[in-house]
Amino acid sequence: MTGILGASASSSSAGSSSAPVHGKFVHVVFFWLKNPDDQAERKQFENNLNNFISGIDYIRSSHVGTAAGTNRTVVDNSYTYCLIVSFDNKDDHDAYQEHALHQKFVTDSEALWERVQVYDSIVV
Amino acid sequence: MTGILGASASSSSAGSSSAPVHGKFVHVVFFWLKNPDDQAERKQFENNLNNFISGIDYIRSSHVGTAAGTNRTVVDNSYTYCLIVSFDNKDDHDAYQEHALHQKFVTDSEALWERVQVYDSIVV
Repeated sequence: MTGILGASASSSSAGSSSAPVHGKFVHVVFFWLKNPDDQAERKQFENNLNNFISGIDYIRSSHVGTAAGTNRTVVDNSYTYCLIVSFDNKDDHDAYQEHALHQKFVTDSEALWERVQVYDSIVV
Repeated sequence: MTGILGASASSSSAGSSSAPVHGKFVHVVFFWLKNPDDQAERKQFENNLNNFISGIDYIRSSHVGTAAGTNRTVVDNSYTYCLIVSFDNKDDHDAYQEHALHQKFVTDSEALWERVQVYDSIVV
């Protein structure tokens, strides 16, 4: 199953190609680390993130990033890391939540964060 | 340019394929409509969203969704719509912000929302 809704390709002067994010269900997570200036803790957290998402087959697409530093009043730049993972459907998301690698990520990483904020979105 | 970081394909019993979200820069927007139960206003807003993103070539991938109804303490389900668009880089995002179709979307739609929350994330 591929994504349903998105920007259709149109004639492009920029030459970019546009496509839906794969999967109908998108899971967006923001992490605020306790020590966002500690480079060793950042590296550990990044490794933990990258290691676990690479092992979970339910994930259709992923993004691991950090605040981009855009400065507008509507933008929250206070978080340390952003994880976006998409799934074909809610069942796959639910299986991801229970997956041993995801559970291990939480166990290995939860001491590093002080806050987690999640938004789950399903294609309209 | 394609995405850099993501879940690598691994042997899969589920048969899913995993890939990075296209582009290094991801722009995540949550909208709280003034009248989230008004079906006409919802439809108008969805149309406005879909019409404008389909015309902007800078967008590499997109998702338009609504709260998935996952009920966990860390999940914010209060928003009405989620827009995720990704770009190759910050310059393309900045051009998107200034794009006439994006400006028209804001003009046509801002009366419908009471709150907008943005998170911009760049691949680490």
